[in-house]
Order: sequence, then C-alpha cells, then structure tokens
Amino acid sequence: MISKLIEKIQKTNAPIVVGLDPTMAMIPEQLKAKAFAEFGETLEGAAEAFWQFNKAIVDSVYDLIPCVKPQIAMYEQLGIPGLIVYKKTVDYCREKGLLVLGDIKRGDIGSTSAAYAVGHLGTIQIGSNTYAPFAEDFATVNPYLGTDGVEPFLKVCREEDKGIFVLVKTSNPSSGEFQDRLIDGRPLYEHVGEKVEEWGSTCMDGAYSNVGAVVGATYPEMGAALRKLMPHTYILVPGYGAQGGKGEDLKAFFNEDGLGAIVNSSRGIIAAWKQEAYAQYGEANFAEASRAAVIAMREDIQNALSSK
Amino acid sequence: MISKLIEKIQKTNAPIVVGLDPTMAMIPEQLKAKAFAEFGETLEGAAEAFWQFNKAIVDSVYDLIPCVKPQIAMYEQLGIPGLIVYKKTVDYCREKGLLVLGDIKRGDIGSTSAAYAVGHLGTIQIGSNTYAPFAEDFATVNPYLGTDGVEPFLKVCREEDKGIFVLVKTSNPSSGEFQDRLIDGRPLYEHVGEKVEEWGSTCMDGAYSNVGAVVGATYPEMGAALRKLMPHTYILVPGYGAQGGKGEDLKAFFNEDGLGAIVNSSRGIIAAWKQEAYAQYGEANFAEASRAAVIAMREDIQNALSSK
Repeated sequence: MISKLIEKIQKTNAPIVVGLDPTMAMIPEQLKAKAFAEFGETLEGAAEAFWQFNKAIVDSVYDLIPCVKPQIAMYEQLGIPGLIVYKKTVDYCREKGLLVLGDIKRGDIGSTSAAYAVGHLGTIQIGSNTYAPFAEDFATVNPYLGTDGVEPFLKVCREEDKGIFVLVKTSNPSSGEFQDRLIDGRPLYEHVGEKVEEWGSTCMDGAYSNVGAVVGATYPEMGAALRKLMPHTYILVPGYGAQGGKGEDLKAFFNEDGLGAIVNSSRGIIAAWKQEAYAQYGEANFAEASRAAVIAMREDIQNALSSK
Repeated sequence: MISKLIEKIQKTNAPIVVGLDPTMAMIPEQLKAKAFAEFGETLEGAAEAFWQFNKAIVDSVYDLIPCVKPQIAMYEQLGIPGLIVYKKTVDYCREKGLLVLGDIKRGDIGSTSAAYAVGHLGTIQIGSNTYAPFAEDFATVNPYLGTDGVEPFLKVCREEDKGIFVLVKTSNPSSGEFQDRLIDGRPLYEHVGEKVEEWGSTCMDGAYSNVGAVVGATYPEMGAALRKLMPHTYILVPGYGAQGGKGEDLKAFFNEDGLGAIVNSSRGIIAAWKQEAYAQYGEANFAEASRAAVIAMREDIQNALSSK
C-alpha cells in the first residue's frame, strides 16, 4: 500500500494529506441552514452538514492530492449519524481515486486490536459472505500496549496490502510528558521508532514498509533524529499550519530522494475560507479557498525541499 | 460518578464488571440462525446476533452486578450496524440500572480528544438542541499523548459527573515493552500512575476520584505498587479468568476497606456456556451459565478479599 501512496505522491508532486476533520464552526452558514432545514437541528442534521462540506472540498481538491485523512473523532462526536457520514466520506474519497488514511488511533490487547484491524482495514466473514466494514487504506495506531497490540494490524497489512502509521512523537504540547522521557539514555519515542522499523521489516513494500510513523511537524529536530533511525519508515507529519509547523521545518522529515514523508493539514485547508489570506473567496466559495490553500501548501513544501 | 459505582458495588457486594465483548464464535447457533434468517448473512445479521446475545446475558445478570463494559472494537468490527448495536447495548444496560463503562481506549491531541470526550461521555449542542451521542458513564482512555490529550475528558468528568479509566499497566503479554521501561529508576507505568493521581485530584468524588486506572490482573505485584502510589484512584482490573488472572491475585488491587478496585471478566462470563465447568447448562441456557459464572466470580473475589 505504501508504494501506491508513493506513486500518487509522485504523480501529484504533492506529499500532502488533507485532514477531513470538520467542526460546525468551520461550515458555512448556508450549508448548515440547508442541512438543518432537511434534518432539523439534530445529530443527523449536523452530520449532513459535515457530509456536504466534505463532499464540496473533496470535489475541489481531489486531483491535487494523493490522500485524505478523516479524523474519526469528529464524526464519533455526532454518534451513529456522524459515523455513517465518516463511512460515506471514506467511500466517496475512494471513488474519487484518493487513498484514505483513517485517523483512528486505535490500539488494544491482541484479540481486541484484531477486531479494530479487521473493522477498519480488513475483511470479515459473515456466514458465506465477506465484508470490508470501513475499508480505509491506512489507519493510525497507538503503540502503548506494545507488539501484541500492533501485530493484528501488521497481519492485515500483510494479507490485504494495507498500511498503518504508528504514533511515535505526536504534535501536541504535552507529547513530551511521556514520549520524551529518557530510557537507557534515549527518549521513549526513539524506542517506539525502533520498534516501528522492526515491525515494518515484516511488511516491506518496495523501499519503504507498510508501517509508517506519526511525528509532529512541531518537533523538527526530533523528526531529523527519527528520520535517520527509521530509514524504511514513511513519516506522517501532522501539526503543519494551524498547529504551528512551517514549511522550513518539514525538510527534516524527508529523505534525500524527496520521499519518506507526507504532511497533513486539516484546518489550514478545509477552513481556509476563514483565514485572512483566503478571505477574498468568501463563504460561498469555501471549497475554492481550500483548493488555493492546497496549492500554496504544495508550493511551500516544494520550496523547502528544493532548498534541502 | 465513582461514588455511584461504589454505591452499586456495595449494594451488590460484587466489585465486578462484565465485559460485553461478543464474538460470533461464542454465540449459540440457534441465536445466529434466527438473526441470519431475519437479516441475511450480513453485517446487520451479525450485529443482530450480538444484540440478542447481549440482551439475554444482561437480562440474566443485571441484578448481580454494578456495571458492564462493552468493548467497542467488537462492534466497530461490524461497521455501522455493529456500532448501532453498541449504542443499543449501552442504552439497554442503562435502562436496566447498570453503569456503563465504554471500553473505547481513545486518546488524541487536545482538540480531537475533546470530540471523543463529548461523543462518549458529554453532550453536544446542535442549534438549540442538546444531545448525548453515546452516553456511557465511564470510558477508558489512552495516556500516550500526555495531559492535553486527557484534559478534555477531565473537563467532561467535572462538568457532567462522568468518569474515566486511564491505561496504566495493561494485561497483555507485550505490555512491558514500553510500559515497564525504567525512567529515572522507575517504570513508565508508575510515572503514568502518578499523573493519573494528579489528574484525579481535579475530579474528586468522595474518597476516590473520577479518574481511575487500568491495571491488569496478570501483574499483581505491579498492582500492589500502583495501589500504594494512587491512593485516590479506583483500579479497573482486566485479565481475570480467560487471560490468566486468579482470585488470589486480585487482593493486591484492593484497599483495606475492600474498595478501590473493580474486576472485569468478559469471555469468562459471557462465554461461560462453552466452558467445561458450565457445560451442564447446555447451549440453549447460555445466559443462565453466565449468571452462574458471575456468582462463582463473586465468591472467588470475596474469598480472596476475606483472606486479605
């Protein structure tokens, strides 16, 4: 699966994943009003607004990018109607030819992780029929429970050519509280990074493995160290844009071949219309503002990489 | 919320939570056949079998126990139809007077954790209406992202009198891979345990806080150390029964007052009918076998505690 992602990155020249993490506050009034008119001020109404918002943005940017990353928490917050729209979004993006990275951050003991792995990336047999319940291409995974919590995901990656990105060093301010603590003289995130490289060795797909790592753009020096420590590991880089990570900071995450990293932006793209830089598009043209923001982000990354 | 749990534990004399983690393999054939006859060999059919199975077991044991713990992964594995049954199970258990601990092990950066916290424990405002999307009483939370990933859950605990159990030392064989590594001479799980006690100090509810800890029955010595380190923290103890934890091992997790811990059993209760000890009930009486297994577990724990 990572080779498919790389192919799409090379084709679009954009190592970019757009985070589809809608909130009610970023959805234009007109769109909300229409959804509420149809479904009332209900969870179904809010979910419909999410769906129309996502659809417009995907229609506007799908030809520019390789991959989207819906954050399932935003949908789960709306209960079942939200999760129905999560699934609808996954399906729609795949129809548009995009790869879908489910930002689910699941992780549990082995037998339970197997259920998550099957539900999101794999297939399940019901009597004589086979179903792919959520059918994302990639998922994010939490490593706190160790190898036996990750192994069921690796199994699905091997059997169904899927991929995962394991949390190594997250982009948030408190990430250092546990992740940076020194163990035998090295931070916990490096120990996790070493395991990611080890897990990946069982799931190779070309020069890279189907086991990636999440490393926040907000920590470029740690990114540089992890880049060296995990030579076969693709890095998913959140925290660019709204969280403070800058184009210049991204260089550390890439290899010399210009590969090895894919950068996520969520609010920076999907809520572009609310930013001063894209105010000229106006609320009605929110999806075009998102397109312009993708193009600007692509340029920002290309500039950073060309100066590497 | 923890005081409500304690009250129910004292009333039932059973510091027991029954894990509602169904798998197709543990559901009696007759029940599956009926569900498939109605919904086909589909995700809906499998979800219906889960629901009928859960309902029969809850009806059979609800008067004996304070709390149930549905494992959301088992439902997520069936996609949307599974999650609908997860929600139906939560609602049904609450109607029967049970507290519901959603075993969701969520955790993300702050703004995203807020969405999980709202979706599972809190309420969301849609226009002029307020909804409680999943409406569990407690949820399990992963600490890898640090304080800002946990804080949104604490906020909901304070505002809506709910509770969480944070993963500290999990019951699985690989849990030591990261959790046992020494930081300043003490294992990571103790550092996490200290944070749990600190987080709990902002959510006190009587002698205990609304922030509990997950510590596996499979590691009783570590349980004893954590019991001392977290005097105001309730411990959720998974791993009893099917995973190998024994009654005798549980003593370490309780305080002198007989409180401070609640023990989970999933397969040991809900798949009791498949065990030799309960074979006399037969497949048709699976729910009665579960009731007998709860009574035996209660006795096992009482014996262990009385010898403390």
